[in-house]
Amino acid sequence: MDKLVRFGVSVEEGLLKKFDAHIQGKKYVNRSEAIRDLIRADLVKKHWQENQEVAGAITIVYDHHQRELVNKLMDIQHDFGELVVSTQHVHLDHHNCLEIIVVRGPARKTQILSDMLKAVKGVRHASLSMSSTGKDI
Amino acid sequence: MDKLVRFGVSVEEGLLKKFDAHIQGKKYVNRSEAIRDLIRADLVKKHWQENQEVAGAITIVYDHHQRELVNKLMDIQHDFGELVVSTQHVHLDHHNCLEIIVVRGPARKTQILSDMLKAVKGVRHASLSMSSTGKDI
Amino acid sequence: MDKLVRFGVSVEEGLLKKFDAHIQGKKYVNRSEAIRDLIRADLVKKHWQENQEVAGAITIVYDHHQRELVNKLMDIQHDFGELVVSTQHVHLDHHNCLEIIVVRGPARKTQILSDMLKAVKGVRHASLSMSSTGKDI
Amino acid sequence: MDKLVRFGVSVEEGLLKKFDAHIQGKKYVNRSEAIRDLIRADLVKKHWQENQEVAGAITIVYDHHQRELVNKLMDIQHDFGELVVSTQHVHLDHHNCLEIIVVRGPARKTQILSDMLKAVKGVRHASLSMSSTGKDI
Repeated sequence: MDKLVRFGVSVEEGLLKKFDAHIQGKKYVNRSEAIRDLIRADLVKKHWQENQEVAGAITIVYDHHQRELVNKLMDIQHDFGELVVSTQHVHLDHHNCLEIIVVRGPARKTQILSDMLKAVKGVRHASLSMSSTGKDI
Repeated sequence: MDKLVRFGVSVEEGLLKKFDAHIQGKKYVNRSEAIRDLIRADLVKKHWQENQEVAGAITIVYDHHQRELVNKLMDIQHDFGELVVSTQHVHLDHHNCLEIIVVRGPARKTQILSDMLKAVKGVRHASLSMSSTGKDI
Repeated sequence: MDKLVRFGVSVEEGLLKKFDAHIQGKKYVNRSEAIRDLIRADLVKKHWQENQEVAGAITIVYDHHQRELVNKLMDIQHDFGELVVSTQHVHLDHHNCLEIIVVRGPARKTQILSDMLKAVKGVRHASLSMSSTGKDI
Repeated sequence: MDKLVRFGVSVEEGLLKKFDAHIQGKKYVNRSEAIRDLIRADLVKKHWQENQEVAGAITIVYDHHQRELVNKLMDIQHDFGELVVSTQHVHLDHHNCLEIIVVRGPARKTQILSDMLKAVKGVRHASLSMSSTGKDI
C-alpha cells in the first residue's frame, strides 16, 4: 500500500455542505475517500483519452441460435488474443446470452475489439466499461 | 462570494503525484481549484439525474432552406417559452446554420425540448450541454 | 427468431456514402445490420433512462489487501441479491483485482448498487456497462 | 439540397414495432427521419473521435465578481482566435453568468480550449456540446 499524505483544500462553505450531503447519500465513510474517487475517475478518463494501458469489460448480448455466431465471436477474440483476459457467460433466456469479456491493453485497441464484436450479425448490443489496471490510480 | 473553509484530505502519495501532473497539464493554478471543479462537476451531474433546476445550451444544426423549418423551430421554442432564455445564431455555410438555445428549468423538460427540436425534419444534429444555474455549486 | 420485415428508408445520397464508408471501416456485413444496431442502442439508452428492466456489468478495481474489503463487497452484493447474477474475478497484479458483477433488474437499482460499491474504501474505480436483457431489442 | 436515395432495410418485426413506438413518443414525422438522425449522430461521434473539423458550443458558468476573471477568459479566447466564432452571455443572477462560446475547428483543439477555460479560477462549470459543421452529415 502506498503511503498516505495529507494536504489542505479550500472550498466555499456552501459548496462543501452540499458535497457532504451528496456523499453521505452515496454512503461514503468520509470526505477523503470521496475526493480520492473523483481524482481516480478523472485520471482513468484521461488514460482512455490518451490511449494508455487500461482494463475494461466488453459486454455483448447475442442470440446463440444465430448460425456460426459463436464461432465468429471466438475467432475475433483470438485475433485480439493479447487483449482478452477472460470471459463470463450468462444465459438470459432461451435465446439471449450475455457475455462479458475482460480486456487489458491499449485503450484504442479495446475499443476496436468492442466495435468489431458489435458489428457481427446476431450481436444485438455491445457496450464497453472503461476501467483501469489499477496501476496508475 | 461565499466564505472559504479549509479541510484536510488524505491521498496516496503516488496518486497525488499523478494528479498534480495531470492538473498542471490542464493549467490549473492550484490543487484546491482542481478539486473544487471535480466537486462541482459531480454535483451538476447529480442535478441533471435528479431533475433539479439546471441551465444548459441546446445546439442544433439545420439547413435553413428546408421549407417551414424556421417557423417550426420557433413554434416549439414558444411552447417551451418558460424554459428558453435566449438564442444565438451562426451561419456555418450557404446551407447550414448552428443555433444555440440557452435553457433554464427542470432538467427533464430541457431534455424533452432538445429531443423535440432534434426530431424536426431538417434539423441534422442536436446536442445538449448540461450545465448549471450556478446557484447550487 | 423473430420474423424479418423490410421497409424503405430515404437518405441524402452524400450522407449514405459517408455512412457506408463508416460501417465498412467497422466491418459491418451490410447496411441493415448497422441500422439495426443503431436502433437497438437507441432503445437500450431509453430503457436505462426510463428505469426499465435491464442487464449490465459493474466493473470494480480494488486492492484486496485492504482489511475487511472483500467481506464488505460481499455483504453489499447480498443486500442486492435479487440483482446480482454472477461475478468474475481477475488478478491484475499483486495488489489489484478486477471484479465484474453481472446484474439484472430495474435500471436505477443497478446504478445504486454500482454507487455503493464505488463508495467502499479500497475500491479504486467502479464503472457500469449499460446493456440489455435482450428481450426488448 | 442533396438528392434523396431510397434503400431497403430488414428489421425483426418486434424490434420495428418498439422503434416505431419510441420515435412516435419523440414526435418524429416518419421512420426515415429518425433513422437519418441516428446515422448523423453516429457520424458526428466519429468526427469527434477522429479529430476532424467540428463545430460545438462551450458553456461556462462563472462569478463575474471574481477579480480579473473576465480579462483572463477574454485572453484565452483570443489565443484560440481561429476557433472562436461568437459568444452569447446570459445573466443568471447577481453573481453568476452563463457564457456560450461557439467554436469551430479540429475536435481536439476545441476540447483543449474547453479544458483551459474550465481551469480558470472563478469558472465554476464548463461543458462542451459536441456538434457538427453540417458539412459531413
